Amino acid sequence: MNKEQAPPILLLPINLFGSNKTMGSSNNKSRMWKTPFTVAFRCRLPIISAPMAGVSGGLLAARVCKAGGLGMIAAGHFQDISKLEKEIQIFQEEMKNIPATGTTTDDRSHSQHQSADLSIGFIGFSALSTPNGWKDYEYILKHHRPKAVQFFAPSIIHQPNDGLSNVQLAHEYNTQFIAQVGSISEAKEAIRHKVDAIICQGSEAGGHGLRRELGSSTMALASQVSKMTSIPVLAAGGIVNGKHLASALCVCDGASMGTRFWASKESTGNPKLQQELIKDNSCDDVVRTTMFDQIQNELSSIMWPHPYHSVGALHNQTSLEWEGKTAQELQNAIDKTELLDEYKSAQKASDPCVGWAKSIISRKPMM
Amino acid sequence: MNKEQAPPILLLPINLFGSNKTMGSSNNKSRMWKTPFTVAFRCRLPIISAPMAGVSGGLLAARVCKAGGLGMIAAGHFQDISKLEKEIQIFQEEMKNIPATGTTTDDRSHSQHQSADLSIGFIGFSALSTPNGWKDYEYILKHHRPKAVQFFAPSIIHQPNDGLSNVQLAHEYNTQFIAQVGSISEAKEAIRHKVDAIICQGSEAGGHGLRRELGSSTMALASQVSKMTSIPVLAAGGIVNGKHLASALCVCDGASMGTRFWASKESTGNPKLQQELIKDNSCDDVVRTTMFDQIQNELSSIMWPHPYHSVGALHNQTSLEWEGKTAQELQNAIDKTELLDEYKSAQKASDPCVGWAKSIISRKPMM
Repeated sequence: MNKEQAPPILLLPINLFGSNKTMGSSNNKSRMWKTPFTVAFRCRLPIISAPMAGVSGGLLAARVCKAGGLGMIAAGHFQDISKLEKEIQIFQEEMKNIPATGTTTDDRSHSQHQSADLSIGFIGFSALSTPNGWKDYEYILKHHRPKAVQFFAPSIIHQPNDGLSNVQLAHEYNTQFIAQVGSISEAKEAIRHKVDAIICQGSEAGGHGLRRELGSSTMALASQVSKMTSIPVLAAGGIVNGKHLASALCVCDGASMGTRFWASKESTGNPKLQQELIKDNSCDDVVRTTMFDQIQNELSSIMWPHPYHSVGALHNQTSLEWEGKTAQELQNAIDKTELLDEYKSAQKASDPCVGWAKSIISRKPMM
Repeated sequence: MNKEQAPPILLLPINLFGSNKTMGSSNNKSRMWKTPFTVAFRCRLPIISAPMAGVSGGLLAARVCKAGGLGMIAAGHFQDISKLEKEIQIFQEEMKNIPATGTTTDDRSHSQHQSADLSIGFIGFSALSTPNGWKDYEYILKHHRPKAVQFFAPSIIHQPNDGLSNVQLAHEYNTQFIAQVGSISEAKEAIRHKVDAIICQGSEAGGHGLRRELGSSTMALASQVSKMTSIPVLAAGGIVNGKHLASALCVCDGASMGTRFWASKESTGNPKLQQELIKDNSCDDVVRTTMFDQIQNELSSIMWPHPYHSVGALHNQTSLEWEGKTAQELQNAIDKTELLDEYKSAQKASDPCVGWAKSIISRKPMM
């Protein structure tokens, strides 16, 4: 019945070409996919591995870079610079092991002061909000010289009254700045502040993103933003295989993928949750919802703000129970029942059936 | 700043190749795009013009067929067979005017009893529900011999206890049956009932579709369904130009487009609303919402049922006012304020700022 047999989803080392020969061992320039993105960011494949907090460490980023993509280390909320520096060290060690194929020798000499492949992703609303946020950000730029940084909406652009914006500061250190947006208005603001590339995140993306009534689909958003600017535009959300990448390249210059890299051996995510991710789920099993954030915001010191207090997630008992009910009804349950305690226990046990767990896992790759 | 200048959106005659020379005047078979869809449905381009009630009449369908696509006449709720037959007559007259390029002479002899290009789309939950529904459906199949019929979810498949299903009845008359679905489970049911093609409608589509928390994006859904079956699969939602079509063809076999054909000279939609459609709107200006159906269901004798009581629409005063409020709050306003009267007046005047108007227009083409 199947038109084609879907390949088994395995936790394999990252291999973007489907052959071990091509990973980290050859320097076959003929295989470069030339798009405005690969040219501007000096990589061989129009693929970014998304900086997923708690999942995208130095090893994953390095393996993606070696395979020819742009591998991102997640700084997340950037509350502890030492955690990030540990992952940067893992990244640099891994990059030393085998010569990278992602960046050519010429490219390296062109940008001798930069870390040829290091790229770091920050959560926009929180990463610069601690007392040391700006100082730490500049320290990372100055001492680690990343090739690129990425900031995720909301609050992508930070512009102190008396200083450089976070975009301008990156440019001072020859670091390229990538903005991940969820709407046309955010894209316009990013373009106004002279970012170097835009990732358009659609509603079908896993993890945090715009509330579902405000979002657009990946291809619709990427297609429109691509017409607004001459800088590279990438699509994010629902893209997990070669056909999807080809589909994205019809309307823009590349793709940023998260969930697909969650499913890799190199991810630092919880293995128990990773097993949920690779089960035989379908489109019908996922949802974009604010309910997990509403619960999580009761427990966490850092609260995702409106309109990004929403995640793309696999359905579980919690989401199925509360879907269709109002935020006020859920709030009543939070205030007056054992819901929070049950949730905390489930979270501690990485129980995918009750807690936040499956929302962290987010979307099933459509292999 | 623009990477490319978007062409002006004009109310031009349908021309799927961008050159008048190719429309209804040549029989250049080299320009056939061979996909499982074009082969199975004997047309030259992998494009369906969606059967939009009140918009897709015989003229639009005929012009699309002549340009090489599969043009659908909308039967809508199919409450009045004479209206449909009038459009079929317009279709047949228009098809006589100039030789069609969509179907080759060979194809015609192959199916001499069929109307070579006639295709009709029905709304699944309502079209067969009148006392004469089944009789009228069989009459259309028997006397007009359409090449294809389409049924739209919910209730695509109708299976009387003691007779043929609507799919089997179509097949009795050598008519191919197309199912338009919004979910994997609906696709599975359609495949089980041996439909001949599936259109996967994503959340970004204009007009009626699955409630936003239940839907998937066009490409994600089309990609998954395409792997479930060997019959042709088409994508619908957010597809309005060649790049989008190319994008769809990376994951499936063709595209069904609605809003783009709303913007054509041949559409029978209200010209005042059509003007709204071609304004400079963006992704940020559209929403999928149940609010229009909640109001409309108070006024109409035919009520769109859960979970399809939702439309993709351009925002207007009404949607902006009620977005974020609960269904109960809107119901209170319906019951206790002048909302329904204001809405009826606006609808009568085709006022796009208050009523249902913009929801009929639905999505702005992303030219």
